[in-house]
Amino acid sequence: MLNRLIYLDAKLSESLQSQLRQKLVEGILVGSFAAGSKLPSSRKLAQQLNISRNTVVLVYQALLAEGYIESRERSGIFVSEEINRGKVEFVDSDIKYNPKQSDNQRRFKGAIAATNAASCPADWQNYSFPFIDGKFNSSLYPVKEWREAVIKANSTRELYLWGQLKSGEDDPMLLDEIRTKILPRRGIQASRDEILITVGTQQALHLITQLFVDETVEVAVEEPGYPEMRALLEQKKAKLLHQPIDDKGLIVDDRLNDCDIIYTTPSHQTPTSITMSLERRDQLLNKAKEQDCLIIEDDFEFESNFLGHPHPALRSLDTDNRVIYVSCLSKVLASGVQIGFIVADASVITELKKLRKLVLRNPPISNQRTVAHFLAMGHYDAFMMHLHKTFFERWLTLREALNIYLPNCIDTGPIQGGTAYWITGPKQLDGEYLRKKAVEHGILIEPVKRYFALGSSPSNCFRMGVTSIPNEKIREGVRKLAQLIHQLTDEHEEKLSNATGKLLEQQQLEQILPGALLECQMVYGVPCTIELKENGRMIGQTFGNDNEVDTGRWWIENGMYYRKWNLWGYGEMRGFYVIMDGNEMKWFDQNYCFVRTLTYQQSTPE
Amino acid sequence: MLNRLIYLDAKLSESLQSQLRQKLVEGILVGSFAAGSKLPSSRKLAQQLNISRNTVVLVYQALLAEGYIESRERSGIFVSEEINRGKVEFVDSDIKYNPKQSDNQRRFKGAIAATNAASCPADWQNYSFPFIDGKFNSSLYPVKEWREAVIKANSTRELYLWGQLKSGEDDPMLLDEIRTKILPRRGIQASRDEILITVGTQQALHLITQLFVDETVEVAVEEPGYPEMRALLEQKKAKLLHQPIDDKGLIVDDRLNDCDIIYTTPSHQTPTSITMSLERRDQLLNKAKEQDCLIIEDDFEFESNFLGHPHPALRSLDTDNRVIYVSCLSKVLASGVQIGFIVADASVITELKKLRKLVLRNPPISNQRTVAHFLAMGHYDAFMMHLHKTFFERWLTLREALNIYLPNCIDTGPIQGGTAYWITGPKQLDGEYLRKKAVEHGILIEPVKRYFALGSSPSNCFRMGVTSIPNEKIREGVRKLAQLIHQLTDEHEEKLSNATGKLLEQQQLEQILPGALLECQMVYGVPCTIELKENGRMIGQTFGNDNEVDTGRWWIENGMYYRKWNLWGYGEMRGFYVIMDGNEMKWFDQNYCFVRTLTYQQSTPE
Repeated sequence: MLNRLIYLDAKLSESLQSQLRQKLVEGILVGSFAAGSKLPSSRKLAQQLNISRNTVVLVYQALLAEGYIESRERSGIFVSEEINRGKVEFVDSDIKYNPKQSDNQRRFKGAIAATNAASCPADWQNYSFPFIDGKFNSSLYPVKEWREAVIKANSTRELYLWGQLKSGEDDPMLLDEIRTKILPRRGIQASRDEILITVGTQQALHLITQLFVDETVEVAVEEPGYPEMRALLEQKKAKLLHQPIDDKGLIVDDRLNDCDIIYTTPSHQTPTSITMSLERRDQLLNKAKEQDCLIIEDDFEFESNFLGHPHPALRSLDTDNRVIYVSCLSKVLASGVQIGFIVADASVITELKKLRKLVLRNPPISNQRTVAHFLAMGHYDAFMMHLHKTFFERWLTLREALNIYLPNCIDTGPIQGGTAYWITGPKQLDGEYLRKKAVEHGILIEPVKRYFALGSSPSNCFRMGVTSIPNEKIREGVRKLAQLIHQLTDEHEEKLSNATGKLLEQQQLEQILPGALLECQMVYGVPCTIELKENGRMIGQTFGNDNEVDTGRWWIENGMYYRKWNLWGYGEMRGFYVIMDGNEMKWFDQNYCFVRTLTYQQSTPE
Repeated sequence: MLNRLIYLDAKLSESLQSQLRQKLVEGILVGSFAAGSKLPSSRKLAQQLNISRNTVVLVYQALLAEGYIESRERSGIFVSEEINRGKVEFVDSDIKYNPKQSDNQRRFKGAIAATNAASCPADWQNYSFPFIDGKFNSSLYPVKEWREAVIKANSTRELYLWGQLKSGEDDPMLLDEIRTKILPRRGIQASRDEILITVGTQQALHLITQLFVDETVEVAVEEPGYPEMRALLEQKKAKLLHQPIDDKGLIVDDRLNDCDIIYTTPSHQTPTSITMSLERRDQLLNKAKEQDCLIIEDDFEFESNFLGHPHPALRSLDTDNRVIYVSCLSKVLASGVQIGFIVADASVITELKKLRKLVLRNPPISNQRTVAHFLAMGHYDAFMMHLHKTFFERWLTLREALNIYLPNCIDTGPIQGGTAYWITGPKQLDGEYLRKKAVEHGILIEPVKRYFALGSSPSNCFRMGVTSIPNEKIREGVRKLAQLIHQLTDEHEEKLSNATGKLLEQQQLEQILPGALLECQMVYGVPCTIELKENGRMIGQTFGNDNEVDTGRWWIENGMYYRKWNLWGYGEMRGFYVIMDGNEMKWFDQNYCFVRTLTYQQSTPE
């Protein structure tokens, strides 16, 4: 009978011994092998299961030592009688819960509306092109180094130290690691009593709203902005001001005059990834001082600034403890251990600590200590360097693919970092329809409606992230997505047949192109010039935070302009029909489809 | 210079390699070894530090691979220039936080009174006799088994699975382990969607109060009771009814008539450890049905029922989803990973899940998965068996010591389990003064004031726990504590010199004692009889949940009654002066101090 209950699979990575142990324990605990019942001898069981007797003996020995089974002289091995100790004597099987009978809803006093969750399927890993921000392919995880930290944090000596930690206090080792290794990177100085560890950023924001917000308080939030913070503020019945952003970050103007609190995400604005400029930071701090209000700085993803140095945190520029700083460890780690932190003056931290103690004592100390070791051994910094490199690579790959496959069609804004692009498509694009269509092609992109509090969310926007998709998949994913976008907006697109202006023929091309200086716009907002030399060489240059230069060849053939860059455009040759409309030049591809507009001028002779 | 910054200690358990790595990384990150600066060759550094060159080479190799340092041909090893990537360029040293300038207190909207924390010193492990409940000596922790689970939960395969978990959802593996292995022990059936994982019990209670309580709701709590629950209810401005308890648990009477919610700790009442009787459970459920109110069952320490089988949980007796069940894993584990859970009908769980998502997304998934593996491998049950045995042993040792050293002086109530005794001392005892005095003698006992909401906390009560003190220390600790108590209440104690009644002399003893049947009361409330046989044998018997029997010898010498039990009283011989007052007999020790009162009768001849 036993061999019917126990099925071992030699093909599993788990050892037979471990499998057998688990099956026996489970059988004993759920009562399949009743307390006091006899188990077969090791010889017999080994025979029945067709495994080595030694395996059975080792498992039996362990279970004997742990009290699951007992050996009775001359009788054999029995399931321990002790096993049911502490088990309720009877379960009246007549009592059945009837879920339909429950009408506890009428008792709810603090029910909340469901937050509009990001619509990412649970099995996103099965899609070919997951452009999802905040999910991570597990290959990124520093498994070996993390396990090293886990093992260090779970030693007998450490457990002794845990015991000395007062309920409600944080691990001093972690506090020191954060204040000496993480905060200096943000220009922030803090002593131990100015830091509070939290179970992720969300808890940090929850505690802060608990302390500072009630229905009398007016809070400015970014529009579009972080929906989970909005939900927290709505729960506290705060008066909300939805302040717009521009390409320098949160707009600072008189609308902020009545605010008590300003919530902002300056490093990479959620959801647009826009970095708040230094001038804007100063303006914001001055405004806060002038109006005597508090700033909650959510320093989300500060590690992922790719172009240029990151700006100092608001907290580091703050001279009068007006900024409450919130951040967390890289989300790649945080998805498992969820360690976030708050930096503020000691009186605020003391009060937040009391609140935290009330809602959950302290963040699990095993997680705190594991992260502390991970930091102390330098694994965190090494990991962040690796992550930064990986994400930067993907971020550039995505930007390039968008620029090549969707020129003159989309706009990503002038961002310097972050792990997602906020993409504005053609006016006629229905972003939600695109998203659904894309899923059918194995492409996941993120809708943006949830980021808007006011009714007017732009229907032609969507987000694409780089945390979850491998670099080598990005180009193909964007190519397919571009096809979809063109299909969906086809009727509104300019065609060679109906374009205004004049199609240039071979001879006109030969007249106009040599020595031309063309200027166009990259999808990420910076200008690009292309110089067509008379000798068939060409030079391209972009003007942004990261100036790029490339060279290539160009020629005219069968009434089309051809070009091949060395690096740009994947180094591929392409040909275009050219239409001139005043000094505006338009390119159309072999299928007569519109590609991009450029400004034409004749370069001054060298 | 380097060797002044780097000091390695061969005596530490940490390897030299690991120490060197940590020191170098720290130096690089905090800037002691500046980016771009040259490091000594492995040969030179090994020489300077007086360690093997191989150790240095291995550390250098690892740091090279991770990008901390770089090797330049023909030049040597340098600190990587990359290392400061992402670091804020300047820290304006003129900006200094001035903690005194902060006046953020005036902004607090949700500040709470500090909960009256248990006064246990942080270094309780340095005291000889820590009778503290809820702290654990680390020797109890199943280090090896726990690490096995930790390693399983942090494998690459598992990390892949974590990625598939939707934000806000619980680990299905843990849900299944809880519903198949833990809940059946309490007679509870539940499906996955009837369980919510929480960051410990405190978060469970917080979420429940968030959902069900506002200022219109009346909640009955036990008096004395769990102060942290009271604080949560006060924060929600609930109307509180402080309902007293008796030796059957929470009193069920008409005072409960207006309640919407009843909060109770039936397994072992906090703080008295009293187990709610089955009849009382029925009464409570009937009352709740009659008044249509909700019950929050905090099933604290259900595993530590020592005498007799535990009663089924209220939730298991509940037919109409009126009971919301809260529990957690053994606190020994929970202090590190803090996994608690709620069982309720699916509609309640759905709503609680939304609230939980808002306040912290979900309990760290690494903790959930580690605990799931710990349960799946059967380690949790083995561990609980071991813990139960250990605590039971200590619990009995403490009860016996109290009974021997403090008879007729204290009262522990008729408890069947739990890990702490609620002790009522002599009327004149000042418990708080005793606690302070005891600390001076290395004895930690717990004050009880914090458990009382109403003003009238009894000043002669205190608590003694068994989770933190090794078994072999208990007797000595109680002996010393008993001395202190006698010192503090000396003036009120009956002495041989002023006792009412008549001192029996040798001859009278010889007349009265043979064939006597003496009856007295144990400190834990059960009667005990002592039969003095004419042949000098004696038989003792207690009548409680655990009837004990012992035999011994007695005799009369120099006007005193002597006795020596085989097991009781540590098998030690003691002699007493005897006073008779009616049929009341009183014993005094060699120092003329009162020991105990017994009822005397002549046994019916056999």
